[in-house]
Amino acid sequence: MKKYEKLAEEIAESIRTGVLRKGDKLPSVRQASASHAVNASTVFEAYYLLEARGLITVKERSGYYVSGGSSTLPELAAHPVAHPYLTPVDVSELVFDILGATRNRTVVPLGSAFPSPLLFPLKKLGRTMASIAQHMDPWSSVRDLSPGDENLRRQIAVRYMIDGFSVPTDDIVITNGALEALNLCLAAVSKPGDSILIECPTFYAALQAIERNGLNAIEIPSHPKTGVNLDAMAAALDQHKPAACWLMTNFQNPLGSLMPEDKKQALVALLQRYQVPLIEDDVYGELYFGQQRPKPAKAFDTEGLVMHCSSFSKCLAPGYRVGWVAAGRFAKTIERIKLTTTLAAPAPVQQTLAAYLAMGGYDRHLRALRHTLLMQQIRFIETIEQVFPAGTQLTRPAGGYFLWLKLPEGTDALSLHQHCLELGISIAPGPMFSAQRQFSEYIRLNYGHEWTSEIEQALHTLARLIPEHIR
Amino acid sequence: MKKYEKLAEEIAESIRTGVLRKGDKLPSVRQASASHAVNASTVFEAYYLLEARGLITVKERSGYYVSGGSSTLPELAAHPVAHPYLTPVDVSELVFDILGATRNRTVVPLGSAFPSPLLFPLKKLGRTMASIAQHMDPWSSVRDLSPGDENLRRQIAVRYMIDGFSVPTDDIVITNGALEALNLCLAAVSKPGDSILIECPTFYAALQAIERNGLNAIEIPSHPKTGVNLDAMAAALDQHKPAACWLMTNFQNPLGSLMPEDKKQALVALLQRYQVPLIEDDVYGELYFGQQRPKPAKAFDTEGLVMHCSSFSKCLAPGYRVGWVAAGRFAKTIERIKLTTTLAAPAPVQQTLAAYLAMGGYDRHLRALRHTLLMQQIRFIETIEQVFPAGTQLTRPAGGYFLWLKLPEGTDALSLHQHCLELGISIAPGPMFSAQRQFSEYIRLNYGHEWTSEIEQALHTLARLIPEHIR
Repeated sequence: MKKYEKLAEEIAESIRTGVLRKGDKLPSVRQASASHAVNASTVFEAYYLLEARGLITVKERSGYYVSGGSSTLPELAAHPVAHPYLTPVDVSELVFDILGATRNRTVVPLGSAFPSPLLFPLKKLGRTMASIAQHMDPWSSVRDLSPGDENLRRQIAVRYMIDGFSVPTDDIVITNGALEALNLCLAAVSKPGDSILIECPTFYAALQAIERNGLNAIEIPSHPKTGVNLDAMAAALDQHKPAACWLMTNFQNPLGSLMPEDKKQALVALLQRYQVPLIEDDVYGELYFGQQRPKPAKAFDTEGLVMHCSSFSKCLAPGYRVGWVAAGRFAKTIERIKLTTTLAAPAPVQQTLAAYLAMGGYDRHLRALRHTLLMQQIRFIETIEQVFPAGTQLTRPAGGYFLWLKLPEGTDALSLHQHCLELGISIAPGPMFSAQRQFSEYIRLNYGHEWTSEIEQALHTLARLIPEHIR
Repeated sequence: MKKYEKLAEEIAESIRTGVLRKGDKLPSVRQASASHAVNASTVFEAYYLLEARGLITVKERSGYYVSGGSSTLPELAAHPVAHPYLTPVDVSELVFDILGATRNRTVVPLGSAFPSPLLFPLKKLGRTMASIAQHMDPWSSVRDLSPGDENLRRQIAVRYMIDGFSVPTDDIVITNGALEALNLCLAAVSKPGDSILIECPTFYAALQAIERNGLNAIEIPSHPKTGVNLDAMAAALDQHKPAACWLMTNFQNPLGSLMPEDKKQALVALLQRYQVPLIEDDVYGELYFGQQRPKPAKAFDTEGLVMHCSSFSKCLAPGYRVGWVAAGRFAKTIERIKLTTTLAAPAPVQQTLAAYLAMGGYDRHLRALRHTLLMQQIRFIETIEQVFPAGTQLTRPAGGYFLWLKLPEGTDALSLHQHCLELGISIAPGPMFSAQRQFSEYIRLNYGHEWTSEIEQALHTLARLIPEHIR
């Protein structure tokens, strides 16, 4: 734990235990610096962190106070609960249009799905790949066929162990990114006409996969802080006979919700009762701002019913397209589908990541990455609170790099998106995250790019445009 | 053209024009060396080449003669024509068992689907990748998303031009090997319950894809020299309403057949008449032993109905998993399926191949590769003719690295395969290449591995075992 994190934790503890109470003024940065024997920047970062967690607020020219909802914009309330609804999906056109726009480098990427590639240890990865490339065993092109490079799979198994649970190396299949892993899982457990439980709002790739495979989506409402509603899910499991459940337990895209551990445990127990497999998308799990990596639901899986999908694309090596699935009882089936569809992930990228992970330094990189993302989140939220119109609500996720905003009543996020694009700014409008194109007043913003005056300006422009798109 | 190729061409010309006639004795190596002012090894290689093409034969202790079928084993006759038969497919278990065996390094890989990785310019590729890896534009992870790296797609378009026809760069989608390309094509043009025309015997991956997607196979008989029977195909097009046709026009796996150009043209015309798309698998096209690269059917496509799939896995960079499809009118659909299933091929491997191709030297490598494969084919055939039992028939493909053998009447290739495996030798038994598990007397042998005493010994062992497996 870094110094500022330690300090923040001490103060948070004081608030939890009631030593500090709502409205209390915190010591000034100078005072705290002296009394804790740390330098001022450490105090600043600790205060930032506490502010990001909503525990304290800053009042200009006055100082820091223990929070009681004095933030200018309210935290996003739970979405109105729609009844789980069985529906075919037709969202792809919209999604492709929006994604196409975010690939243009001249567009400010608030709507992008990717963090900035500049956040990653590209130099070190490059040197590692250079060395691997020049010393590759020629026969590794056969050896590294699916299920994949043995060293890499072992490194991944070790990381599960570090996170407090164990996954057999043999259950791990290397894939071309998490997206392939998720699609392989879906193929392994469903056939056309089946129904799939998803959360609402959901990552659009789940919608696209469901659409492409002729499946039906059952949308379960999801809370912006704690994730999918288990009562609604239990009802849907009872009523429909879903072939699988597909969701993100940690820092969900687009909500940023983090399912508490006991809820994950309850989720797995519920699915085991119905023997419905869980396709768990956990690509943001390493990007936590709290004390430790949140466990995935997989950690509570005693029957091999959870297929845990992740990748290195969001936390280490964008563009390498290396992901995996820890597939439990479905591992063999998934390996075979992989062998007959894309055969294998490329040997050089697999070996590069195996070597990088073996070398050490990954956790140091991750700490720096998390810190950067948290700082950027804080700056985004500060600016949004300053300039966005009243009636805006927003999430304050404890990880990842997405904010989910509800704009003032009656805002048309799709027309806002079009307007922004004309001005060289992309945003991700809410309807792309729903089979029924709900969330017409919502947008997702990406804070995974370096905070610059261009981005600050884009947020100002966005704020200015919103009122024009209220019906 | 190399010296030996030039000399071989001169002699072939003499045979064609009747200067040399059937049964004529050729000059001894020493005589020819003197009269053509080349060294003896050049003459040897020219004679080898002519022998491989079936134009001359060698009689031990006697010399070289213009051919008239004096080979000890007859060329494989056409397969008995079964009627095209609509059938669901269930071949995967068999194929996985067999492929699993060929991955064991201690097994002599006569049944392998891959050529030896030692045949490729791995050092130069490694240096290229090392340089790319250390100078990658961080933003290329976004830029190189599907349809793929612009430079690589342009290099591929240039190669089409060199081969005498043009394909727009925009029609090219980079994939994770040709296998993904083929699967994307199938997904783009079919839905469960549809029928697909395939050749018989066929590459098992086509069978597996058809099986996985709930499609039906219509098997069209294929000639060991000239490929699929167009009359049978016309009848099948008339009778069934197939969603697509999937076949290999150049050095088909397992037959090694090469469809003549006019036949390819007729094939495309036939499919255009019925507006049935062609999924053309052309991964062996660069491995020709003749004067020039055989054109794919794509060269005759005037309506964008042919999806031409290929890769660098068999001719340049095994393990890089970089393939592509030139998809004509289906390019946009395929790009989108790729974006929603595996997103993109890894940026480093795409850029490495683009840089390698731009550098020059690829054609030089290909010439050496073809020469090696031809020499290995000749050695394989020589040995097979010496030691295999009477009643064996075999192909003499003009490219690729597979021989297709019909063993004596009543041989059980599956039990032979099991027996061989126990002795550390893999072979590819015929039934894995047919939806109806035909070809029980056939095997495919891979001559794409360096000729060693181990391989020679394995052929001897195989020959010895055959009689034990005749029912």
